[in-house]
Amino acid sequence: MRQLQVYMLPALTTAEDLAGQTVVVIDVLRATTTIVHALAAGASEVIPCLEVTGARNVAASLGGDHVVLAGERGGLPIDGFALGNSPAEFRPETVGGKTIVFTTTNGTRAMQLCRDAREVLLGAFVNLSAVIAALRDADVVHLLCAGTRNKITREDVLLAGAIVDHLLAERPAELSDQAELALDAWRTVAHDLTNVPLAERLRASCGGRNMLKIGQESDIDLAAQIDRFDIVPRLDVGQWNIRPR
Amino acid sequence: MRQLQVYMLPALTTAEDLAGQTVVVIDVLRATTTIVHALAAGASEVIPCLEVTGARNVAASLGGDHVVLAGERGGLPIDGFALGNSPAEFRPETVGGKTIVFTTTNGTRAMQLCRDAREVLLGAFVNLSAVIAALRDADVVHLLCAGTRNKITREDVLLAGAIVDHLLAERPAELSDQAELALDAWRTVAHDLTNVPLAERLRASCGGRNMLKIGQESDIDLAAQIDRFDIVPRLDVGQWNIRPR
Repeated sequence: MRQLQVYMLPALTTAEDLAGQTVVVIDVLRATTTIVHALAAGASEVIPCLEVTGARNVAASLGGDHVVLAGERGGLPIDGFALGNSPAEFRPETVGGKTIVFTTTNGTRAMQLCRDAREVLLGAFVNLSAVIAALRDADVVHLLCAGTRNKITREDVLLAGAIVDHLLAERPAELSDQAELALDAWRTVAHDLTNVPLAERLRASCGGRNMLKIGQESDIDLAAQIDRFDIVPRLDVGQWNIRPR
Repeated sequence: MRQLQVYMLPALTTAEDLAGQTVVVIDVLRATTTIVHALAAGASEVIPCLEVTGARNVAASLGGDHVVLAGERGGLPIDGFALGNSPAEFRPETVGGKTIVFTTTNGTRAMQLCRDAREVLLGAFVNLSAVIAALRDADVVHLLCAGTRNKITREDVLLAGAIVDHLLAERPAELSDQAELALDAWRTVAHDLTNVPLAERLRASCGGRNMLKIGQESDIDLAAQIDRFDIVPRLDVGQWNIRPR
């Protein structure tokens, strides 16, 4: 039987557990949402970096006009970086054909845990159905939520639950306890989407409250646009870059 | 406004976060359920120990007929221990008037995180309403799930969600994301208790599957008896013992 595993935080699994596996990394607010936007806008690749200094070094080593530095710290732009971490900034005119060197703490930390995985996909509400389709043949699926500063955030768990729900509709599966809990959360929200839209749920989550604090409320609305894009970003753990699958 | 925090695992909080706070430790299968049974059966106190050797040393230092060693490792009885970790073993004839030196890994680890807390209560489904009543005046409540071997287990999260649900019925509260997720899980189960009894939910959880593996299915039924007892065990972090509050 198919097995579905959810980790509500990177700290709840290990690189060993994920070695050789199919993993979906989830950071709804905002890294994975933003990376989908970037690739949809025609960026040729995204290179995820944990630290600002590392990002600068990578960009310097690549050189040239085709490289764009992007990311933020505490919601603030980084000195010398062309772009922040808002999905709205990643448009054809800013990133088309470019290599994005992208620094984001939570999302990158989750990706680093996947360094020995077989296939690493990036999931967001904006590419939910595309991710489901990409997982069609996987018998064991690991859904890894990035969280925020080592805290579980409901928006990531909701997306994990949505993926579990869709995969269960395809065929029976064995769920880990965290997968059950994620499913409970998603179904609670899904049953009432007409009264309480997804964006409102995201606004109330830990990640959403952080967005409100830094004045990025519009990013929540962008993150809540289910299936806006038909793109699945894939992290090549050898090359350490992200391109469309 | 009242604040309700849930930690699905000890690893998701710290002793510093819990210092000076009111904490409910939750280990439904089986430590907190068993300790409620022990005190209900007339045990005078329970001393929680992390290790078998530590438990033996404590028992030896206390000496005398009034001391009973209890606990298990991997579901198996421990050599020289009078009792295991099954609630059914804790009866007036085995524990009445006795000091129980009790070794349980997950529950004790959670309790040790509460070493600087102001008030530490032990929660289980068997004393749910008594715990709710004991929390009436607390403005900040921390619900700490023990989990199993550093894995989140749904049965503990369900009880945390049940406590959140009952406290919310009293007055409005601010919930952490984990508290929201626990509430989602509990309400999913609570809405359907007539069709799927709680014991059946517990059987399907990580902790429940462990009970089935070691042939302790009847303990699941005991753990699912909501409000069987009107006792709230309280850990005195100075004396390091548990007595009825």
